[in-house]
Amino acid sequence: MAIHLGAISNQQPFVFEELERRGFVVHKVSQGRSWQDWARDLAPYAGEIRGLLSGGMTGLPKGLIDALPKLEICAINGVGLETTDLPAAKARGIVVTTTPVLFDDVADLAIALGMAACRRIAEADRYVRAGKWLQGRMPLGRSFWGKRYGILGLGRIGQALARRLEGFGGTIGYYDPQPKTGLSWRACASAVELARASDILFLCAAGSPGGGVIVGRDLLEALGPCGVFVNIARGWLVDEPALVELLATGGLGAAGLDVFADEPTVPERLLGLDNVVLTPHIASSTEECMRRMGECVLANLVTWFSEGRAVTPVAN
Amino acid sequence: MAIHLGAISNQQPFVFEELERRGFVVHKVSQGRSWQDWARDLAPYAGEIRGLLSGGMTGLPKGLIDALPKLEICAINGVGLETTDLPAAKARGIVVTTTPVLFDDVADLAIALGMAACRRIAEADRYVRAGKWLQGRMPLGRSFWGKRYGILGLGRIGQALARRLEGFGGTIGYYDPQPKTGLSWRACASAVELARASDILFLCAAGSPGGGVIVGRDLLEALGPCGVFVNIARGWLVDEPALVELLATGGLGAAGLDVFADEPTVPERLLGLDNVVLTPHIASSTEECMRRMGECVLANLVTWFSEGRAVTPVAN
Repeated sequence: MAIHLGAISNQQPFVFEELERRGFVVHKVSQGRSWQDWARDLAPYAGEIRGLLSGGMTGLPKGLIDALPKLEICAINGVGLETTDLPAAKARGIVVTTTPVLFDDVADLAIALGMAACRRIAEADRYVRAGKWLQGRMPLGRSFWGKRYGILGLGRIGQALARRLEGFGGTIGYYDPQPKTGLSWRACASAVELARASDILFLCAAGSPGGGVIVGRDLLEALGPCGVFVNIARGWLVDEPALVELLATGGLGAAGLDVFADEPTVPERLLGLDNVVLTPHIASSTEECMRRMGECVLANLVTWFSEGRAVTPVAN
Repeated sequence: MAIHLGAISNQQPFVFEELERRGFVVHKVSQGRSWQDWARDLAPYAGEIRGLLSGGMTGLPKGLIDALPKLEICAINGVGLETTDLPAAKARGIVVTTTPVLFDDVADLAIALGMAACRRIAEADRYVRAGKWLQGRMPLGRSFWGKRYGILGLGRIGQALARRLEGFGGTIGYYDPQPKTGLSWRACASAVELARASDILFLCAAGSPGGGVIVGRDLLEALGPCGVFVNIARGWLVDEPALVELLATGGLGAAGLDVFADEPTVPERLLGLDNVVLTPHIASSTEECMRRMGECVLANLVTWFSEGRAVTPVAN
């Protein structure tokens, strides 16, 4: 008897193809934007769906757990868990898996955005394409090397970032609420203290369910008019109105932003600023990484339904 | 009696201010584009000019040496020497100085352009600003980490680049016509062999006077449809028509280009391509680097005329 799966987020085409080749029936409802949409669209198959394909932003909300009584496994194509109700999943015995294979690509994007913000890469590209080079020189950027780098959240992404930064001749500080041992990088006592001691601050914190803003106005002001802020974590971890205002008024030097509080909507005011580099949540969007992530989603579902175990389950 | 200087390239304002504060008379003719222009514009002061401020692209051509019979020192704000006639300068006893303080910023830009090309940073920024994210996802980029990096020209910039690349978990190869010892990076027997063994190729060679193209069509084809080419050296070291054609037709994957054969003119066809990142020769254009370079120019001139020695003379 065919195993039925629901899919509430897009996946690489080969993932669906391979699942269908193996006889799974996949119900795709990724056009929805909330658990109510997904629950409604999956309702006709709710009695049969035993597995769910989700994404880092969609997760596994409580409402969807309740709407899918036969659900055994939720395979998330990403690592964010802030929209997943882990206690509710545990109570129901549902296994949740992520794709812990994206840290290097995300750390790369942090460097790329930090350098692009300092060296004005996107602005420079616009400058050349608009023919402005023929009229003169563009304004100077700032050095990336030899700076005081700050990493807010020293998990696997933060550590991959720190290893890359070691080649740039600066100093590396971090703040993480969980004490770290055996690391040579300088620990700061608070996020604001880290910002005060940093020229370039990278937000690499995991978004946790119900967690509030961790980059507030005070922290951005501590970073200051020459400071550069990079966000490859989550937009809602930042006081975005304060960020936009400080960038527009000179209170913060520059920013490289891959994530936004209400993405894909980006604050209108940011779109006109030259001191920001804006990317559409592409930290893991490389061919190589998407392939690896898709293979991980696939391996979790196939192994679960053939051997009764998941490959990369979340400890819940 | 005041010492007269000529300036044939732009300098940071503080350099001119400090020279004038110290009593130098500076004749600025940077609007010219050839040695004939500069010689003509400096002609009224040719009998008095003892020092010259030049740039990495303008250098010290033979015609200008002949036009300035009292010239003792030429302080170049840059490191390129391909437009400087060193033998003619030596024959006249003219000291030539450069600013060997820009290697780290140039190496940074090489990384920034390589990452921007792989991760489509400039394209992504255009995508967000144009509101396209609201309609869907942009095409995937490619990973930068874990690749086969190739460095063509392992001088001080190439070595600064290699040290940075060590944090990205790939392999580092190089080709340099001058044998290098004591380095852990893999030497290749030729430039084309290096290209064949590279995913991302960085051109870091010095432009030498009268030197021809070192990145020809064969080398770019060896790099191939998935290859990425980065040029932070000189545009005229590359067969630019072949580069443009291969980029436009899929023979080469992507490129990050800071220099062009006939800059500030950029080949029209490049301006419409999404697989290139174009910057207006800004490899050393940071506030910090420009300050350091200006201080170096200043130190050479001041020390020469007060102590009879230069600080960073070129060995000629």
